[in-house]
Amino acid sequence: MVLNLEIGYDVPARPGMTLDQVQTPALVLDLDALDDNLRRMGRYVQHHGVALRAHGKMHKSADIARRQMEIGGACGICCQKVSEAEAFVKAGILDVLVSNQVRDAVKIDRLAQLPNYDAKVGVCIDDLENVIELAAAVARHGTVLDVLVELDCGAERCGVPPAAVPDLARAVCQISGLRFAGIQAYQGAMQHLPTFAERQAKFAAVADALRIALNGLKTAGITCKTVTGAGTGSYPLETASGLYTELQCGSYAFMDADYGRVLNAEGDRLDDENWRNAMFILTQVMSTAGENRAVCDAGLKALTGESGLPTVFQNTELVCTDLSDEHCKINDLDGILTVGQRLFLVPGHCDPTVNLHDWYVGMRGGLVEAVWPVTARGKIW
Amino acid sequence: MVLNLEIGYDVPARPGMTLDQVQTPALVLDLDALDDNLRRMGRYVQHHGVALRAHGKMHKSADIARRQMEIGGACGICCQKVSEAEAFVKAGILDVLVSNQVRDAVKIDRLAQLPNYDAKVGVCIDDLENVIELAAAVARHGTVLDVLVELDCGAERCGVPPAAVPDLARAVCQISGLRFAGIQAYQGAMQHLPTFAERQAKFAAVADALRIALNGLKTAGITCKTVTGAGTGSYPLETASGLYTELQCGSYAFMDADYGRVLNAEGDRLDDENWRNAMFILTQVMSTAGENRAVCDAGLKALTGESGLPTVFQNTELVCTDLSDEHCKINDLDGILTVGQRLFLVPGHCDPTVNLHDWYVGMRGGLVEAVWPVTARGKIW
Repeated sequence: MVLNLEIGYDVPARPGMTLDQVQTPALVLDLDALDDNLRRMGRYVQHHGVALRAHGKMHKSADIARRQMEIGGACGICCQKVSEAEAFVKAGILDVLVSNQVRDAVKIDRLAQLPNYDAKVGVCIDDLENVIELAAAVARHGTVLDVLVELDCGAERCGVPPAAVPDLARAVCQISGLRFAGIQAYQGAMQHLPTFAERQAKFAAVADALRIALNGLKTAGITCKTVTGAGTGSYPLETASGLYTELQCGSYAFMDADYGRVLNAEGDRLDDENWRNAMFILTQVMSTAGENRAVCDAGLKALTGESGLPTVFQNTELVCTDLSDEHCKINDLDGILTVGQRLFLVPGHCDPTVNLHDWYVGMRGGLVEAVWPVTARGKIW
Repeated sequence: MVLNLEIGYDVPARPGMTLDQVQTPALVLDLDALDDNLRRMGRYVQHHGVALRAHGKMHKSADIARRQMEIGGACGICCQKVSEAEAFVKAGILDVLVSNQVRDAVKIDRLAQLPNYDAKVGVCIDDLENVIELAAAVARHGTVLDVLVELDCGAERCGVPPAAVPDLARAVCQISGLRFAGIQAYQGAMQHLPTFAERQAKFAAVADALRIALNGLKTAGITCKTVTGAGTGSYPLETASGLYTELQCGSYAFMDADYGRVLNAEGDRLDDENWRNAMFILTQVMSTAGENRAVCDAGLKALTGESGLPTVFQNTELVCTDLSDEHCKINDLDGILTVGQRLFLVPGHCDPTVNLHDWYVGMRGGLVEAVWPVTARGKIW
């Protein structure tokens, strides 16, 4: 497919190209680093006896999801939107949890049709009304959905307090086309807290809420097969708690500058290795006309800015000082950068950065090995 | 074309739909407000005797560019990337300035081919080497490019100091396939300064630099037909200076929350009207499970966060308190929001927000009138 597309208009590269032939800016993967990260997480979940449902909202790629399932111990993926789930299922990823609420009538109807593609599909709820909506949709299409009750475990976003979990679970159990699958307990707000101690303190409240919810289900005589949650910033805590059956980590596969700051602090981790940077924005110097700076061709349309400026990979001398719509400025006091030179930027935040791009350029041994579509790019419905 | 696409997977809406049928989140235009803004700028440039080269990097839409040329007094557009220019030219916008440097060999070669589509195409330079590269490319393809020397007028990004302008212009004049067209003098860093006084102070330095450059060209006997620049935050200053022949405003067509803050301060403008908000992210409440808040379905993949949180259109009671990858939280102390309710968010920054979406949903009189592709979305090469 890639062979018929125009380089620099439709796609940034073609398999077999060298790095200096890749059109910049480009979303580049170090495939060795990616594989290392995937295998490492696979070993981790196997060792600890938990499942991994890797978060597909991060990479939005069916190719990477497949790799996570093939070499990285993943049972399937999760994602946040119905259109994202559709993109994954249509690309052959057949175990997908929408780790979010689906409320719009059109979206609910589309979701209820997805199991017809031989897929196991789940969704989260935090409202009784939603159970009724889902029930009508699965009845209409003759399908079955897994349903998890989302617990608000401190992030104060979606989800119900622990005391409300049993009633919602009971309502789900009464619907023949809905299968109560367990609890979704993801504390997004703690993932990027700057120290491990802060995340540990936040997790205490998560565990407390979760225990109350689980006891409530037990008292109500409702079996809770799955407790799913955890992110790259917290998964050793969820694992050590013994309360979770499934981890939803996403960023571990790629890493980004913000997680780099957070996770590399001393004593920050319960395990002893660091994730490798596997995803970069390849950029090219396009102007050195000004003193003490180089201007590169990647801006806010190539990497997002809400989590801070990007860093230059494995280089602390070169510092990004500004990110505008189409440019980033690199402080180059010694004037070592020249026009055309290529730099690997580590973006502040991987998820929304990936969503800017249509293609991954997978590199190994200095050559482009794979050009993968960002399968669910822009699937925000 | 739109009729064959799936609502909620390929496109968010279809012409004729009502607002509550539009799949959220969606990039929505108020076409009356858009037309008002376009006509108003058209009147402004006509009244002041300057040209308008509307910035297409903002909207990335051939349909809007065409409308700017038809009803809004624009002579053509500018954009920042070769692939963007290609998208516009292929869609019939035949007067395009790449208001940026183009340095990569593949990009230069593509740029030099664009005039073959019957298009008038321009580009900026800030380096002698680049003149040589462009010269080789136009010779190869038998085409002619307009070339503007970019002046660093205080933004400290690309561009040369004023004293270097004549030598670069002279080099351009010596190449038969290159037409020296003038000076690009855009001070991006002043556009969003919080007060008019601050922008005015910054502009003094712009005007000084520009006068030196223009005098240098005069002394060298080089005619400077065009001085192009200015943004929505500063164009009355460029116009009043009498130094500019062409304005490059972009955001005036849509407005955003950051320009709203900047431009609505008292005494902030040299003209007496405000631009209307014409672009919104339509979102839907998806959870009210928590107290004092509603969670909506638009996050960082529907609107960008580097210029602050979005506002709720014409509503100061409802305040967005958090923007995460797929959600935004609205403070709803009085509990007035219900699941399914739709809100119009005004994003912090229009340009990178538009680039997240594949489609514009143009509304008029409560109905979807047009579904336009974001022609150059993702064209970052």
